[in-house]
Amino acid sequence: MAGVDYLADERNKAQFDVDAMKIVWAGSRHAFEVSDRISKLVANDPAFAKDERTMMPRKELFKNTLRKAAYAWKKINELRLSEEEASKLRFYVDEPAFTDLHWGMFVPFIKGQGTDEQQQKWLSLAYKMQIIGCYAQTELGHGSNVQGLETTATFDPQTDEFVIHSPTLTSSKWWPGGLGKVSTHAVVFARLITDGKEYGVHGFIVQLRSLEDHQPLPGVTVGDIGMKFGNGAYNTMDNGVLRFDHVRIPRDHMLMRFSQVTRDGKYKQSDVPRQLVYGTMVYVRQTIVQDASSALSRAVCIATRYSAVRRQFGSQNGGPETQVIDYKTQQSRLFPLLASAYAFRFAGEWLKWLYTDVTQRLQANDFSTLPEAHACTAGLKSLTTSATADAIEECRKLCGGHGYLCTSGLPELFAVYVPACTYEGDNIVMLLQVARFLMKTVSQLAFGKQLTGTIAYMGRLEHLMECRCSVQKAEDWLNPSAVLEVFEARAARMSVSGAQRLSNFTNPEEGFAELSADLVEAAVAHCQLIVVSKFIEKLQQDIPGQGVKEQLKALCGIYYLYLLHKHQGDFLATSCITPKQASLANDLLRTLYSQVRPNAVALVDAFNYTDHYLGSILGCYDGNVYAKLYDAAWKDPLNESVVPDGYQEFIRPLLKRQLGNAKL
Amino acid sequence: MAGVDYLADERNKAQFDVDAMKIVWAGSRHAFEVSDRISKLVANDPAFAKDERTMMPRKELFKNTLRKAAYAWKKINELRLSEEEASKLRFYVDEPAFTDLHWGMFVPFIKGQGTDEQQQKWLSLAYKMQIIGCYAQTELGHGSNVQGLETTATFDPQTDEFVIHSPTLTSSKWWPGGLGKVSTHAVVFARLITDGKEYGVHGFIVQLRSLEDHQPLPGVTVGDIGMKFGNGAYNTMDNGVLRFDHVRIPRDHMLMRFSQVTRDGKYKQSDVPRQLVYGTMVYVRQTIVQDASSALSRAVCIATRYSAVRRQFGSQNGGPETQVIDYKTQQSRLFPLLASAYAFRFAGEWLKWLYTDVTQRLQANDFSTLPEAHACTAGLKSLTTSATADAIEECRKLCGGHGYLCTSGLPELFAVYVPACTYEGDNIVMLLQVARFLMKTVSQLAFGKQLTGTIAYMGRLEHLMECRCSVQKAEDWLNPSAVLEVFEARAARMSVSGAQRLSNFTNPEEGFAELSADLVEAAVAHCQLIVVSKFIEKLQQDIPGQGVKEQLKALCGIYYLYLLHKHQGDFLATSCITPKQASLANDLLRTLYSQVRPNAVALVDAFNYTDHYLGSILGCYDGNVYAKLYDAAWKDPLNESVVPDGYQEFIRPLLKRQLGNAKL
Ligand SMILES: Cc1cc2nc3c(=O)[nH]c(=O)nc-3n(C[C@H](O)[C@H](O)[C@H](O)COP(=O)(O)OP(=O)(O)OC[C@H]3O[C@@H](n4cnc5c(N)ncnc54)[C@H](O)[C@@H]3O)c2cc1C
Ligand SMILES: Cc1cc2nc3c(=O)[nH]c(=O)nc-3n(C[C@H](O)[C@H](O)[C@H](O)COP(=O)(O)OP(=O)(O)OC[C@H]3O[C@@H](n4cnc5c(N)ncnc54)[C@H](O)[C@@H]3O)c2cc1C
Repeated sequence: MAGVDYLADERNKAQFDVDAMKIVWAGSRHAFEVSDRISKLVANDPAFAKDERTMMPRKELFKNTLRKAAYAWKKINELRLSEEEASKLRFYVDEPAFTDLHWGMFVPFIKGQGTDEQQQKWLSLAYKMQIIGCYAQTELGHGSNVQGLETTATFDPQTDEFVIHSPTLTSSKWWPGGLGKVSTHAVVFARLITDGKEYGVHGFIVQLRSLEDHQPLPGVTVGDIGMKFGNGAYNTMDNGVLRFDHVRIPRDHMLMRFSQVTRDGKYKQSDVPRQLVYGTMVYVRQTIVQDASSALSRAVCIATRYSAVRRQFGSQNGGPETQVIDYKTQQSRLFPLLASAYAFRFAGEWLKWLYTDVTQRLQANDFSTLPEAHACTAGLKSLTTSATADAIEECRKLCGGHGYLCTSGLPELFAVYVPACTYEGDNIVMLLQVARFLMKTVSQLAFGKQLTGTIAYMGRLEHLMECRCSVQKAEDWLNPSAVLEVFEARAARMSVSGAQRLSNFTNPEEGFAELSADLVEAAVAHCQLIVVSKFIEKLQQDIPGQGVKEQLKALCGIYYLYLLHKHQGDFLATSCITPKQASLANDLLRTLYSQVRPNAVALVDAFNYTDHYLGSILGCYDGNVYAKLYDAAWKDPLNESVVPDGYQEFIRPLLKRQLGNAKL
Repeated sequence: MAGVDYLADERNKAQFDVDAMKIVWAGSRHAFEVSDRISKLVANDPAFAKDERTMMPRKELFKNTLRKAAYAWKKINELRLSEEEASKLRFYVDEPAFTDLHWGMFVPFIKGQGTDEQQQKWLSLAYKMQIIGCYAQTELGHGSNVQGLETTATFDPQTDEFVIHSPTLTSSKWWPGGLGKVSTHAVVFARLITDGKEYGVHGFIVQLRSLEDHQPLPGVTVGDIGMKFGNGAYNTMDNGVLRFDHVRIPRDHMLMRFSQVTRDGKYKQSDVPRQLVYGTMVYVRQTIVQDASSALSRAVCIATRYSAVRRQFGSQNGGPETQVIDYKTQQSRLFPLLASAYAFRFAGEWLKWLYTDVTQRLQANDFSTLPEAHACTAGLKSLTTSATADAIEECRKLCGGHGYLCTSGLPELFAVYVPACTYEGDNIVMLLQVARFLMKTVSQLAFGKQLTGTIAYMGRLEHLMECRCSVQKAEDWLNPSAVLEVFEARAARMSVSGAQRLSNFTNPEEGFAELSADLVEAAVAHCQLIVVSKFIEKLQQDIPGQGVKEQLKALCGIYYLYLLHKHQGDFLATSCITPKQASLANDLLRTLYSQVRPNAVALVDAFNYTDHYLGSILGCYDGNVYAKLYDAAWKDPLNESVVPDGYQEFIRPLLKRQLGNAKL
């Protein structure tokens, strides 16, 4: 039944202009057009097919990724794609590869930490991919605590070289993507030692492999660290292990923008302010929040379409059964995730703005907003990645048994996504940083420090400690300022209560350690407030398109009411709301679910994902799920023969009771 | 450094008799001894090695499973293992295989639904594995709603046969384990049609493959449904697809214990009470709860040992860094899961007793406890599997980056475990059944019906609606009867509030549908109460062993206080506790974490898992994590050559800017 749209009924129900929503989702008409064009280019090119990825053994999988990466680079050059287009192309190819680290970490890091000459030298090679680089920070024994890294870089004034060395087993570099099999170069983090003194961890550019035959250079031991979670997924990436046996590099391979070692081995700080480093960090974390909304929206798109196709129970007089999307339990699990996808999208958009703002300030030597920006990006990184990882798995469960098949796309999406909770800062470590920032903010309130940005609400602490929520009937929960105040009050009261309990400890560090689990909850409350407030701010903008703003309002309401219900304990314990108000919020939530229901499929259509990018039979655009599942099954290698390999040796002797003599 | 125990310090800290705890965990000295002996037998036999499972392509993986299954069966016969020992052996082999369905579903189902003659005929073949059977219920289009299955079994009086047929694509059987490549027979569920009338879904024994050459019989189309979540994991199982094209089976292949079709095509109910079916269901769900505690304890064992090995931050004067298990955030995520493992273990033990009790009553024609037993097993199935799935992933995250490696064992454990949330009753569908039972119970309270078992507390409704929690200081939360009352009050009040709101609807079915998401929360409250009360009851028994009971008390406290904190919103909204009491509970929780901390490693040692069964480098008994991780990395197929396959075709031309002519 090719050509039939099984979801046409659903699409006809939509009460808003889907094309206009597509622009809102993409961020601008321009962004939409680029995305649309590039995603179709990728989808229509058989060289980028990925249907068999989850069935491939590791070596074949990896070789195939090498092919795609080379092919993509060829395309980028042939079509003379802009930087924006090229990065979209890599995005829609949708396969982790060494190029991610080359473009996403190696290049930005040299930009951020290299001197002008260093940038000129290395970036011109890197931009043409005449060298391939990775980012080698983490070690077998050290991750979160970067200051604990053990690799050493000892300056030898005799030869004007650094000697890079791995003194222990635990100092082996471990995890860097692209390192295992591909990278020719790495930014290596090591403790700088010169003149018999140690100066902490610094970055060095180290060549790892010959540019002629790709053999590791003398003293370099390098390999892949082995299989990771899931089929396909991150196994296309060669996360690597690396050991140095007294490897020598020229002195000027140390990245010297912020500090230098002179010819005679003196360590010197440069006059470039170190705070500039944070710019890169805000940039990287901003992209992580964007990625969260992409991954989440993909999962939600699959689960929503399939929930409209899937029917179970409720048949009356032999008619069709109920679409599972009509069950309130299904809605109460799915629609908050749909709303979260939009919420994270707008939070990401705002972070992009924040990055520009921070960069401009840094250039003007204004560091005043840095601590707030830093806390805020760390917190949103943690919040959005944790929520997205959980949401993907929930979407998989929402698809019942069929969600467990690789052809549903959800297992691979989960497996490839979850490390975002760990890399670029373990999510709990991130929240502890936010908590520290909050405690510091509270403790300084007395000094009348001016608070800006996402922490400005603390300036109204007196009011927030006392205010009473005015909600009297369910619809009152539609009032954005009432909602904001409740979220602000909760966050403020949790922080203050944490600070008060901290003050009972004579040693504040001990107190922080003892109360850390509670303080992390205050940090979460603060971060949720940020996402809610950015969603509400978005709705205060002019948003064109028939019915578009109404839908976004409903989604915004679902997002904050869902949080309010999920964290009811916080809101009640801090007396921000009453049990009655909590119950009214829940009533409104159900109404909003009903409002979103007829628009659900159109709301995921607005993501404008191709079937190629989605990579899911359950989520396919036309909803022709069953025929496609059935056809796909027969492609499994196990179906190459009707009688399986192993029948003669293991099944037949068992059935015939002849195992006694069998060689097993 | 073979032979060094890196966790010796931790083991020395333990304040209780670990050997005595092992007996408590196993359930009895006998159970411990069998487990201990069989797990070592498996661990020491290289034929059962599983280190390379996650690296194997599907066909190789599957063939290897066939080998292990045959080998295991040979061992079972050679060593003349008892049924208990044989099933332990399959458990410790730790690899999903067709034998699970043969022994776990096919055999029990024939036992439950076959007549005496049918049992004699089929079981004697099945017990010797001269036939291999599976359980074919689910279809491509129908899972949860068994009554919606489409496969037909039409009686043909001319030949005294049933004609089994798949009338539509969606009627294809889909999912049955062991079906795809191995089973020779299946119990097939189909709509029985005779005399032009339909009599609903019944079970039939259908031969699928020739016993001579394993070819599918005429009219049978059968194959594997393809890759599932994860590497290794459930891909060792041949979940299958099956279609019938008018396949004929003798009339007596219908399982006729409860109903029959006579020679002349008349449908007749037998006088065996249908309720007996529920016995099997209680049995199967009871094993699922046991499995939950096994999977959870495994994950917790890995995360606990690794958290004691892993150090991060906090080094003072060049000394070692802090073990991450000493961070309160780590404890507050890990120790509740450790406590849950014990809680589920005892809940499982109690369910075993419940099964015996129900069986005895059924034999005496006493069906009075069935609804309660049914709701309770459905609820505990849902509660324990959902919590376990989430917990495994949390344990993976607790291991930071290294948890993402397959050698950590956690990715595969997660992937192989999660379908337990879906099979044997989707967890939400299960909770909806519990909710229905609760609403019915409340509505019948007025009629003074005697309430027994896990619902007995509802008999004290008047008191529970009014009681006030007496806790005044943190330690008051150690009082079991205060705790029980609070959990009972919360569950009762949530049910009553649901029932009250239901009564506002004129159509109760519509009301139930509309409020279902809230009612599911009441069901969860009821199920948590059951687990808490069974843990508390366990502690009222005599438990030998120095310090053992003290540890269990601490774990029990952690379990209920953790629930109390997590669901604070419920407790506060129903006014079961005050914010002050909630905060005191949290204080006690932290104290209990400190109490458990020195015993943590010993508490997971008490599970008595071999390194083979655990299958995790991070969780290995001796804690020698880093050397083992490093060595294991080099075994990845990608490390067979230093320069990767694909270098000449894809990397070199890219570096040399020669992609123009390259064939990609
Ligand atoms: C897929 C993937 C790709 C990666 N790519 C790269 C790469 O390209 N380059 C690179 O250099 N690295 C890379 N990494 C490594 C990554 O950056 C680290 O894994 C990450 O920083 C987490 O550190 P860890 O593994 O040491 O975790 P750990 O810090 O050891 O975490 C273990 C546990 O300890 C807890 N913990 C740690 N410190 C504290 C504290 N102070 N207080 C409370 N709790 C604490 C954590 O919350 C966690 O529960 C990658 C990792 C993965 C999984
Ligand atoms: C690994 C694995 C092994 C299996 N082995 C076997 C086997 O050996 N033999 C066999 O016969 N089957 C087997 N199954 C199938 C399994 O029993 C079904 O997948 C399971 O019963 C769930 O049904 P479903 O897939 O139809 O989910 P669905 O019912 O389609 O679930 C989809 C969504 O709808 C929701 N939903 C459904 N009904 C309702 C309702 N009334 N109210 C509210 N929400 C609802 C669910 O909560 C879920 O979110 C297996 C499945 C798996 C994953």
